This record gives sequence, structure tokens and C-alpha cells, in this order.
Amino acid sequence: MSFLDFAKTPPMGWNSWDSYGASVTEAEVKGNADYMAKNMKEFGWEYIVVDIQWSEPTADSTRYHPFVPLCMDEYSRLIPAENRFPSSANGKGFKELGDYIHSLGLKFGIHIMRGIPRQAVHQNTALKGTDKRARDIALNNICPWNSDMYGVNVDMPEGQLYYDSLLELYASWGVDFIKVDDIADSKLYKSAHHKEIAAIRKAIDKTGREIVLSLSPGPAAIGDGAFLQDNANMWRMTDDFWDHWRSLYAMFERAAKWAPFVRPGNWPDCDMLPLGHIGIRAVDGGGGDNWTRFTHDEQITLMSLWTIMQSPLMFGGELTDLDPWTLKLITNEQVLKMYKELNYQRQVYRDRTWVVWKAKSETDQYVAIFNTSDEEKQVDASIMSNIVPLEEEVLNLWENEKITLSNQTLPAHGALLIKL
Amino acid sequence: MSFLDFAKTPPMGWNSWDSYGASVTEAEVKGNADYMAKNMKEFGWEYIVVDIQWSEPTADSTRYHPFVPLCMDEYSRLIPAENRFPSSANGKGFKELGDYIHSLGLKFGIHIMRGIPRQAVHQNTALKGTDKRARDIALNNICPWNSDMYGVNVDMPEGQLYYDSLLELYASWGVDFIKVDDIADSKLYKSAHHKEIAAIRKAIDKTGREIVLSLSPGPAAIGDGAFLQDNANMWRMTDDFWDHWRSLYAMFERAAKWAPFVRPGNWPDCDMLPLGHIGIRAVDGGGGDNWTRFTHDEQITLMSLWTIMQSPLMFGGELTDLDPWTLKLITNEQVLKMYKELNYQRQVYRDRTWVVWKAKSETDQYVAIFNTSDEEKQVDASIMSNIVPLEEEVLNLWENEKITLSNQTLPAHGALLIKL
Amino acid sequence: MSFLDFAKTPPMGWNSWDSYGASVTEAEVKGNADYMAKNMKEFGWEYIVVDIQWSEPTADSTRYHPFVPLCMDEYSRLIPAENRFPSSANGKGFKELGDYIHSLGLKFGIHIMRGIPRQAVHQNTALKGTDKRARDIALNNICPWNSDMYGVNVDMPEGQLYYDSLLELYASWGVDFIKVDDIADSKLYKSAHHKEIAAIRKAIDKTGREIVLSLSPGPAAIGDGAFLQDNANMWRMTDDFWDHWRSLYAMFERAAKWAPFVRPGNWPDCDMLPLGHIGIRAVDGGGGDNWTRFTHDEQITLMSLWTIMQSPLMFGGELTDLDPWTLKLITNEQVLKMYKELNYQRQVYRDRTWVVWKAKSETDQYVAIFNTSDEEKQVDASIMSNIVPLEEEVLNLWENEKITLSNQTLPAHGALLIKL
Amino acid sequence: MSFLDFAKTPPMGWNSWDSYGASVTEAEVKGNADYMAKNMKEFGWEYIVVDIQWSEPTADSTRYHPFVPLCMDEYSRLIPAENRFPSSANGKGFKELGDYIHSLGLKFGIHIMRGIPRQAVHQNTALKGTDKRARDIALNNICPWNSDMYGVNVDMPEGQLYYDSLLELYASWGVDFIKVDDIADSKLYKSAHHKEIAAIRKAIDKTGREIVLSLSPGPAAIGDGAFLQDNANMWRMTDDFWDHWRSLYAMFERAAKWAPFVRPGNWPDCDMLPLGHIGIRAVDGGGGDNWTRFTHDEQITLMSLWTIMQSPLMFGGELTDLDPWTLKLITNEQVLKMYKELNYQRQVYRDRTWVVWKAKSETDQYVAIFNTSDEEKQVDASIMSNIVPLEEEVLNLWENEKITLSNQTLPAHGALLIKL
Repeated sequence: MSFLDFAKTPPMGWNSWDSYGASVTEAEVKGNADYMAKNMKEFGWEYIVVDIQWSEPTADSTRYHPFVPLCMDEYSRLIPAENRFPSSANGKGFKELGDYIHSLGLKFGIHIMRGIPRQAVHQNTALKGTDKRARDIALNNICPWNSDMYGVNVDMPEGQLYYDSLLELYASWGVDFIKVDDIADSKLYKSAHHKEIAAIRKAIDKTGREIVLSLSPGPAAIGDGAFLQDNANMWRMTDDFWDHWRSLYAMFERAAKWAPFVRPGNWPDCDMLPLGHIGIRAVDGGGGDNWTRFTHDEQITLMSLWTIMQSPLMFGGELTDLDPWTLKLITNEQVLKMYKELNYQRQVYRDRTWVVWKAKSETDQYVAIFNTSDEEKQVDASIMSNIVPLEEEVLNLWENEKITLSNQTLPAHGALLIKL
Repeated sequence: MSFLDFAKTPPMGWNSWDSYGASVTEAEVKGNADYMAKNMKEFGWEYIVVDIQWSEPTADSTRYHPFVPLCMDEYSRLIPAENRFPSSANGKGFKELGDYIHSLGLKFGIHIMRGIPRQAVHQNTALKGTDKRARDIALNNICPWNSDMYGVNVDMPEGQLYYDSLLELYASWGVDFIKVDDIADSKLYKSAHHKEIAAIRKAIDKTGREIVLSLSPGPAAIGDGAFLQDNANMWRMTDDFWDHWRSLYAMFERAAKWAPFVRPGNWPDCDMLPLGHIGIRAVDGGGGDNWTRFTHDEQITLMSLWTIMQSPLMFGGELTDLDPWTLKLITNEQVLKMYKELNYQRQVYRDRTWVVWKAKSETDQYVAIFNTSDEEKQVDASIMSNIVPLEEEVLNLWENEKITLSNQTLPAHGALLIKL
Repeated sequence: MSFLDFAKTPPMGWNSWDSYGASVTEAEVKGNADYMAKNMKEFGWEYIVVDIQWSEPTADSTRYHPFVPLCMDEYSRLIPAENRFPSSANGKGFKELGDYIHSLGLKFGIHIMRGIPRQAVHQNTALKGTDKRARDIALNNICPWNSDMYGVNVDMPEGQLYYDSLLELYASWGVDFIKVDDIADSKLYKSAHHKEIAAIRKAIDKTGREIVLSLSPGPAAIGDGAFLQDNANMWRMTDDFWDHWRSLYAMFERAAKWAPFVRPGNWPDCDMLPLGHIGIRAVDGGGGDNWTRFTHDEQITLMSLWTIMQSPLMFGGELTDLDPWTLKLITNEQVLKMYKELNYQRQVYRDRTWVVWKAKSETDQYVAIFNTSDEEKQVDASIMSNIVPLEEEVLNLWENEKITLSNQTLPAHGALLIKL
Repeated sequence: MSFLDFAKTPPMGWNSWDSYGASVTEAEVKGNADYMAKNMKEFGWEYIVVDIQWSEPTADSTRYHPFVPLCMDEYSRLIPAENRFPSSANGKGFKELGDYIHSLGLKFGIHIMRGIPRQAVHQNTALKGTDKRARDIALNNICPWNSDMYGVNVDMPEGQLYYDSLLELYASWGVDFIKVDDIADSKLYKSAHHKEIAAIRKAIDKTGREIVLSLSPGPAAIGDGAFLQDNANMWRMTDDFWDHWRSLYAMFERAAKWAPFVRPGNWPDCDMLPLGHIGIRAVDGGGGDNWTRFTHDEQITLMSLWTIMQSPLMFGGELTDLDPWTLKLITNEQVLKMYKELNYQRQVYRDRTWVVWKAKSETDQYVAIFNTSDEEKQVDASIMSNIVPLEEEVLNLWENEKITLSNQTLPAHGALLIKL
């Protein structure tokens, strides 16, 4: 069995970052899991992912506290902070939280940083399964935006062993998904950390557990596309995405470039959906504790692009606060059917106003038309007549109604998603 | 019908550059065509391509004569130099040569430079189908390694019209293949000339003729991969390739990166095969009038990589001088069957010594193992056991004999190409 | 005698670009010369410079007409367009205009583009003093923003000879100053054209005439500083400068970096002064036919920076329209005395609000204080006390009055220029 | 008094790196000091510099031991390792070693790394004069080639205070020279660490002691030249220099570019002299325990370039092993007189064979002629006649004999240094 089988369709889930930054608590995670199980699971939503720094007892937002001590076990492995995750007391790690999430019929994911804790290296603590110690396997390379870790020398067997010991621990907790950060695009070293990606791939495969591998941050280099297809289930094609039109607009170009790399098990990632109630304790992206700054039309554009591209869908808002409009947006049956069934998609046209994608599944053909201008626009026959059937009756997926394109008007920043 | 259908399998042919630089003559072209029809056609070889500067009467090697006058028609279109291509006299262009090649059951290709002749611009000559003149549609951008052309402003309808008039002319000559140069990687402007690529795509489509589009030079940017898939049948992933091991070695990385873009109608291009008798009037690549400097083992490596990658195969040597060993190399039935039938291929392993590719067709599975070191090496079980079946009987395609991999030894720079 | 002696103090003059782009006429040049002789000469203003494309009969603004024919003599040398410069009729070139300007006690300057006319190369015209022709010495390199010229191969003696023939012609016209363009920072080749700079240096020296050499455009690379000191009197440290605060603000950093290269005969150049009535037929810089968009305070800042840095001063506005305030600004005796006498200057402090320069002459010490913020600010004792004498009486040069710095307030974008 | 007065002529001394890497001992330092006092002091040699990692007890070569503990005082300041520097026992630091060197009439220098020890940050140790602790002032930035330190946030007053506390300690030891590393060209951050350079400048000035400031590694960016002139006495224009002709050859270009920045108190630095017996415990530069790999002619070239450029001279070989030829080379009176008296120097000619520099002092004029080719060459009159007086009698400084240049022959990689 190949790791490509771990994610035959694009992963769909919830991630704690957009709402809680580095500071989410066990109760909040469970609250979101409960909501998903009850309201979203039937549509395919299944992962609950605890994002960065669950080992940091004092984490309180998206701003890290440089150089503070983290919770760590006797083998130089980070473990959950008990004050934030009470069920992890007595060395149980995330086992109980994982069990709880599984009991709801969902899957459990965690975030980790590439490397070994710097505190382990400077204290020269032990490693599992070897007499070598933390200092022996550490490399003098860092993440520039977080001070927790040093890189690991996986050219040494003991370096691989350290990653093996991490994944063994995570598998024992029942982890189904890991998001590894500071690895797909090092802002400092201007490239992916290829060797550590390959080591984590191997470490996962050794566990025998189907753990989906997600790599961050982006933008991953497109020249690494073939390598990433061989090693990961999803990887970020973009830096952190927040609720600004300019960021959404920039995604069109990236999505178009990465489309040739989409295939079952490989899902280039447009990043999380900063929709609904976000920023509760997250301060990145220029927001605050607020509702998404995207308009309804922009949200339809976002969802149309993410789904026709088959990006993973990781919801960032607090689910228990979800409003009916947003819930409907992310549980549209026609759209999600398309999303799961597509086997081909490409951008076929682009100018300053219009972007058009075409896609197909075994049985159907789809078109997405985007108006990226700041004004309402009628579908332009002089441009579109060679691209889409203007006079035929087609299905508007978002509204589940028949339309003809020739008389359609798209709002500023709006989209139409149709089945031919 | 899509242009992807113009080349359902990778194009195979002969190109005049490696032997004659800019200076090939009609007689030489016909000689190579005759040979191909007689000895190679049955194996799938079919294109005969006249490379650069067939309009330059004094061309005599790979070194261009800067700023010399070129043969041109009344519509600012370059035409063959009569002294080199006698059948083109009286405005017949390449029609008779094309007819001759077709009469052999082969296809006819030509090379062109992006743009409009500088001499047309400075003389401000006429264009077909418009009152605008050469100066009106020219852009002040150039190719840095050849002084023939200026870029064309295809944002103007008359710019598109000029390219339309070129392709109309080529179609009237019976051209089946054009290689457009100074367009896929401008050495000066550090990018592809996207607009002119799209204009040429449109101009071809308007002719209604199945003309394969090949773009040069490389390396094309991998970020342009999706765009190139939409516009061309083949594009160079590499700068000019000559018979040096270091150039062949460098191709492994490029081929691995471009593999995800291979599909029917889209064939990323490793460049021509500098094999057999080359350099007759070409002086690039550090050679001279000589036989390829590749060893037999290196030639097997080259052909194994090009075929498992499904790069186009464009032979560069003078065919009428072909030796039996080389002829056999390029007409191996098992290898060419694989080459035409594959529908998937990837590099699956690489270290300083070994490179391994896997590929499959509808019915078969293939492996290529390369020893890129400078020493003979036995297949290394500790590395290969997870990748290939070591003890099973497999078919060595080059030798058409059954072998078991565990006891195989590969020569320095050598390769094994096997069917499982 | 060294060429450094040609400009012992920084050149001061008028240049036609900011007002007329490529289109100035003889009458306009004379009008400005007359004004300068009468009103500015006594303060040191002396050069009258005809900027780009005086060979182009149809030039009408800053926008060039690509590929149009230029006026040229039998030796492939550009000559003035008679319709614009009537005194140049009958092959007299700029001789009569030069004589006129000299008769006013002023000096005469012209602009040229690096290279040989493309029309000469494509017509393969003759060169003076050799049987070689234009095609033989041309290089396939261009200016990306103007289509007049090709580079010259000065590795050939005939290439040097061509530049010698140009300078011989200019010397015969009585030229005192040449501004050579497309040479100090090629936007296309990302460097200076070193060889052609050295060739022009040699060609000037051979004339025996004191012709000041000015190189454009900028920004010249600071790594070329030592080379430029050896070859030119002035060179642009900046791209074209127009009347925007952001451009003026950006000059502070450049001026600070280039200060170590200032010495008699070498004057790194902050570009022309877009002051007074500009844009009459120039459309660059986002302006139009208008008065400078700089506020009075910004103009004082500009003049304070240019003079304490000892940048050349080349006035860009139409002199005959000069208003009293601007005339006073550019003829302040105290300021110009400082400007001509300084032998050392450096930026000594910079933060987000304040920039401070110190300078000295044989006999005096000067300080310039700039408020680069968008708000009026009082001189900040906590910052300035270590830098300038706060309580001492000092001379405010612009106002010619005694002040004490401790109680001074600077307007937004304003400056104080003082003598200790 | 300005810090420029701390080094009115270029510093001359000995540095432990080329012979001992990070591992020099007190006895070795004293041995070199004794030799210098006895044999070299009279010629101007005066600094004895202990290079990197004198706090590392186990240092044994140029290869650092990543993450090992360093000797540190209660205020997070590194102190000498007692096992290597016995006189530093009982908290005396380098006081006794400094006293010893001063007693010989010499000056004492040390090397430090930019920043605060990582071990201090992870242990969160105390700082002198503030309640803030190491973690509070540390930045998450590193040196990529040594794992000892984190950067310091000098935007906080406590960050400046930490540097003040360092310099206060060094002043108390009698330090006359500090070489600060990882600061002039960060290999990771691709720039100088400007803020920390300015903070160290301030910290030195506060001590009231004349401590020469030397910045490493290079190549410093020439765009930082004006800033460096304002803050340091010397800075490296080059990466580490070892005894390879290609490195020496590369220095010509750098020296030519930096010449405009040479002035009393500012001495762009060509790096140490890897001459005599080097590599005793240093393994960088591809050498070993050996005598310099430079030929005698190359050494004359090196010394001619360094002295006419007025680079600092820091001898890298073990002085007690010095041979007579090398001692004579570095104590040539005529050459060192020139070296100390020059007030101007420039490269005036360069081609593939020849490099010529000219220089002058208040009273004399000098020329250095270098043959950079691999063959013996006679002085070429066709090139040199415009540059140097060929038939005049001039003084050959190295040989102290009169010669005429027209009949001189220079060996491969050789030089002539002459006084006119």
C-alpha cells in the first residue's frame, strides 16, 4: 500500500490556528470535534487538527514566546502541556484526546515543527534507542520565525531514529494526520528541507499507520513538485492565507501552476479557510477577534477555486459559532460531490477580469468562471464563446438551478461554478 | 480536435543542427530523409527538421554572421535562401522539399526564430493583410545570441496577423512541425515570451493543419509547465545538449522534475541526440567534425533516460554515415515499444551513484537503473531491495535477454533498462 | 593634466530633458542660455545641455518613436536634425549653437547614446578612417528603452576609432560636456558597459579638449565606484529623478553611500532638478506641463542635500519662466559658497525622522539637518546633543540669519543648513 | 578624539587562527609575543591577537564542536577556558596575559562572536546592571558556521547594556583590539548586522579605552563602505584567505574596488598572511601542518598588494618557527616606510596579465607592477609607456636597488614595487 492511498480524496477538516494561534485548549478542540461530528461529518469533513506549540504551557496567541521551556519527555520528544491538555497528564500524551475524536467517527491530527527541541540540545538529553544524545544529532540550523527547534542530521542513523521515535509516539496516540512546519519552504534557507522530509516519510511508513502527511509553510517551490508528490500527501503552495482579497487573488496564479501536480494522494494546498468566527486568540493576518472579512461573493470565489483545484479544505473558524450561511457554503452537496470526484482540472483562460477553469470527473464536466475585477460584470461573449457553451442550459452548483451563461452577471470578486 | 492529438506519442526525427549548424543544404536534407525512409521509418522515426537560418545565404557553421541580409518575401516573411535550397526558387519556398519528404512517407519540420526580421523593421516593409508596416508591430526586444529578429507586439491585432501570415505560409509549404527558438527561455529577459507563444499557438490552430509545436531554447522554467502544457507539444527542459558526460549527468535532475508534465501531446524535451557522425559544419559543444564523444555505455544511458522519460527523440548525427551499432541503438524494438506505450514514469531513487526510474504502460512495468559513478558497480542489494525485485527473472531490454538483477554489474556511466 | 581638472567644482547648468524630453529646439536652447547668462552665470551656473535625440526630426516628447530614421553623416555619426536646429544646416552640426553659447560666456553640452546607430548597421554604412563598415564593429546588444543604437565592439581598434571619430566631431563643434546614456546602468544587462566607458574616456583625452564626461542612467553600482572615479567626472547614482517626495526621500540613502567617492573632478550625480516650470513637452514622472510638485520646504531639502553632497546641479525647468522664489533658491550665495568649497562630507545620523550631515571646507564647518517625517518637528535634544552644538549661535544659510538650534522647529520634509 | 585616531596607520600584528584555529594556548600566545617583541617590534609590528573560542575548553582545531558548553561568568559573558589560559583562573580573565603582552611593549587583541551565548539564553542567566535576563535580550538569529551565540536585540536599552558590559570587561583586561566575527557579512542573512556593529562602536567609545575595532568575516558589501568607515577601523573585504594563488589573484579586484575607502583610521582588510609555518592545528584552507604553499614570488606579490593597498598586516604563521627569508619579507624597511606613509593609492591598469597600482605619500610616488599570468613576462612597453616611466632610474623597493623598468622581467605571479 502506498501513502497515496491515505488520502484518496482531498483531506477535509478543522484546524485550530486561525482561531487560536498557538494556544488552543483541549476543551476547545473537543467542542469543535463535537460540532463537526454532529453537523459536518456526513459531508466528508473528518480531521480535527491541533496546530502549533501544544507543548508550550504559556502560549496565548499567534505570537510565540522566544526561548521559553517546552514540555518534553525523557527521550527529547515534545509532549502536550498538561495545563492546556489535562487528559495528557501522567505521560498519556494525546492518547485520550485521540480516542475521544475517534469515538466521534473523526480523525485526529497534530502539528509539529521540523527538528529537535533546542532545549534538548543545550541540555544534551537522551534519545530513544541509542546512546547518542540530543547534541550529537542536532544541526546548527533554525526556523527563523520560531525558536523551538534545531534541524536534525538525518544522514546519521540516529537522526532517522529520532524521527522514528517521534512517529512511533504519535502512532501510539492514534494520530491520523501530521502537519510538519518549517520544512516545505524555509524562509531562511530559501528551499525545502528535503532530507528531513524524506526522513519523516520513512518514519511514517515504518509505523504501519495511515498518517496523512501535510507540509508547511509555503510557497513550496514548483521545482520540488515531483519530490513532494513522492513524499507527502499535501504541501502548501502559499504562505499563510488570511481573509484579504489580495491574498485570494494571488491564489489564482498559484493554483494554475500547481494543477498538473494534483492526483489521488497528492493535494497541493491553498491553506486553511479563514471563514466564520476567527481570530479569537490569533492576531496574525491583521485581524482580531472577528468574523471573516471576506464578502459572501469572495467566499463563494474562495470555495469555488479551492474545490475545483481540489485543495484540501481545512476550516479555520470556531465551529460552535458557525452561522447558517457559512455552514451551507461548506456543506453544499453538489459542490462537494464535484470536489471528491474530479480527476482533471486546469485554468483555461485568464485576463485582468476573468479567470476560467475547466474540470472533469469520470462522468461530468465542470466550469468555474471568476470575475476578479472590482466591478459587477456580465459574462463577455466575445471572450467566452470559444471557452464555454453560452446558450446551453447548465447547472449552477451553488444555487442548484439551471441557467444559461449568456445572460449571467457576476458580482465583483464573484464566481459561478457550473456543471455542463 | 486538440493540438495534443498532433503528437500522441513523443515525436521522433532528425534535425540538422548537430551536424550542420545554420548551414544545411537541400541535398543534405534529402540525403537524410532518404536514409530515414529506408532504414528507420518502420521503427517510428518520421520528422525531418531543417534547423536555424535557412534564409541566410552565407551561413557556414553554428556561428552566425551578425546583421547580414536574409532572404525575405514582400510581406516581411523569411524565405529559403535559393543558393542553399534550389527548389525554393521562384517563390516556391519549401513546398517542393516538403512534397519530397512527404513522398517518402515522412514529415517535414522547420525552425524559426521568434519575431520579425530586423531588416524588415529598419526598411519598414509591408505586412500581409494590413496597411500597417513592419515598424508598427516590432518591439525593441531581441535575442541575445542571434541578430536576425525583433519581437512582435501581439497585443496589436496586426501583430497576431503577422504570425498568422507566417503559419499560413508554412502550412502552404506542407510543414508538419515547427521549432520556435528564442522563446521558451530568453537568456536576456530571463523568462519565456508568453504572449508570443500564445500567439503562435493561435496561428497554428487557425491553419487547420496538424503542425507540431516545439519551443526552444531551455531550460524552460518549471513554473511555466502548466502554461506550456496548454500551448505546445514539446519544450526544452535544458540548454543545448552536447556529447559531454557532465551534460548527460545534469539531465537526470531535470528529467525527474519534469516527469509530472509528461502526457499525450505534451513531451518535455531533453534535446537532440548528438550521436553518430556530428559536427560536420557545427562547431558548438567543443567538438568538431567527429564521432560522438559519448562511450557506448553513456549512449545506452542517454537512450534509456530519454525513452523512459518519453522525451522526443531527435537524432543529430548525419544519417547516411550511421554505423551499425548506433543504428541498432536507436531502433531497438523492445525499447521503442516501451517508449511509445508508457503512461507513467518517475524517478524513484537517487544517490551519488544510483538513479532508478520506474514506469508503466497499460500492460507492463519497467525499471531503469543507472550507475552514474565513474566506476563499475554491482547492483547494491542494500539499496535496491526495497525498490526492485532482485531475484526475479526480468527482461533486459537492450539485450533482449532474461536476467536477475541481484548479480548484475553496471559499467561506469552505464544503465540497465528492464521489463518486470 | 588629468580629466579630474575639467571639473574642479561640481558642474552647474541647465538640461533640456525635464521640460522638453527628446524634443527641444534651437530657439528654446538659446532662450535658456540667454537667461542663464544674464541672471545665473555670476553664481557659477555655466553649462547648457541639449539632451537626447537631437537627431530625431519628429521627436515631440519624452516618448521615443521606435525605429524611426535619424539624421546621420557619411561616417555613421548622428548629426542634428535641421528642422529642429536650423543652424546645423549644410553639415555644420552644432558648431554655430556652440559658438553662440560660448559667446555668452557659457559652456555647451550634448547628450549621446552609447553605441552606433542601428540604421547604420543595417545599411552597413562607412566609418571614418577605416575600410571597415558599421556592421563590422556593431555588437548585438541594445538599450531596452530606446531603439536607436547597437553597442560597439571596442576590443577592435576600429571600434575605438569610431568613438574617436565621434569625439573629434564634437570637439570640432566646441562641445564642453557630454552626457552619455545607456552606459552607467544597463537596465537589460544589469551592469555598466565598462569597456565603452573606457573607450569614451580615451576618445575624449585624444581630442585635447576639456570635455566633462557625465554618465547615465543610474543607479550606478557602488562596486563600480573606483572604476568610475578613474573614467568620468560625474555619474548618476539614481534612476531618473522627478518631483515626488518618495524619490527625494530615497536619495538620502544613496547620497550617504556615495559620499566617500566625492572629490575634485568626481561628482556622483543625484540627477537634475525638476524645479520651476517643467513638463512642457515631457510626460515622464507622472507630471505634465506644470510647476514642480515639490513644496517649498521640499525644495529647500533637495537643494540642501544636493549641495552638501556636492552633486552636480543641472536645472530642469524652463529658465525664462523662472519665478523669483526659485531663482533665489538656486542663487543663494552662502549656500553656493559652501557647495563649491567643501572638501569633506558625510551623513552622521539617521533615524526614521532625522537625517544629519556634516561637512567641512578648508575654513568652515557645516551641518544639514533634515526632518524627513510628515510632521513638523522640534529639534530633538536627546538625539542631537551628541551631534550638533545646540546652544551655540550658528548661521542659517538659507535665511542668512543667526539662530540657536535648541529652539528650532523644522516643517515636514524640511531642512536646516547651517554654518558653525 | 575620534576612533579613527586609534589606528592612524594600518594595524600590524599576529593572529592565532592560521596556525591554531580555535585552539591556541596561553603558552603559544606568549611565545609569539616574545618573538615579536624581540624581532619585529622595531618595524611596527605590535598586536598579538587571540582568535576565536578562547572560552571553549575542548577546542582542538579549526573545526568547532557544536553546542558544547563554554566558560561563562555570572553575567552571561564568555571568559577564557582555564585549562588553555591558566592565568585566567579565579576570574582574572585575560588581565594577566594582557599585562604580559603590554610589558613587552606590544598590544593585546581578542576575537569575539557577535551576540550572547546560546547557553546563557537557554539557561536564562543574569545580565550585569539590569533585572532583565539573557532570554529577554536574545534574538532568534544565528551564525551559520558556529553554534555559540544568538544575536542581541540592541533596540532594547538592555541589549546595548550587554555589549557595554562586554567591553567594560575587555577594557578591564587591557584589551587594545577586538575582532568581532559573524557581523560584517552574515552568510545566512546576506548582509552586515548593522545595528550590532553600531552598538559595539558605542560600547567601545563608552570605555574610554583606545580599542581598535576589526569586523569579520568578509566580503563586506561595498555599499556598506560609508557605514563601516563611520564605525570600524578595519573590516574584511574578503572571505577567509588561504595560501592559494586563485585566492590571491581574486584579491586584486577587491582591493581595487575598496581603495577609495582607505584613509587614516579606516583600513579595508585583505585578511591575514598565511605565510611561514601554518596549519599547526588549523585544518581550513585545504592545508595541514605545513609551510605556506605560496612561492616566493607569490609572497612578494601578496606583500606588495597588501602594503600598497594599506591593508592591515596580520601574520598567521607561528613566529618562533620563522625562517630568515620570511622575516626579511615582512620587515623590509623601504616597503614598510611606504606602507605607513601613503595617503593615496589606486589600481591604474589591468588586463589578463598585468595589474598596475600607483600610490603616493606626502613626499614620494610609488608604482606596483604585477604579472598575474602563469609565465615569466618582460615589462610590455606598448602597454606600460603611458603608465610608468620606462627609461628613468627607479628604486626597486624589495631589492633596494636602482633599476630601469624597460628591461625588467617579472616571474610568473611576481611583482615589482618601485619608488619613482
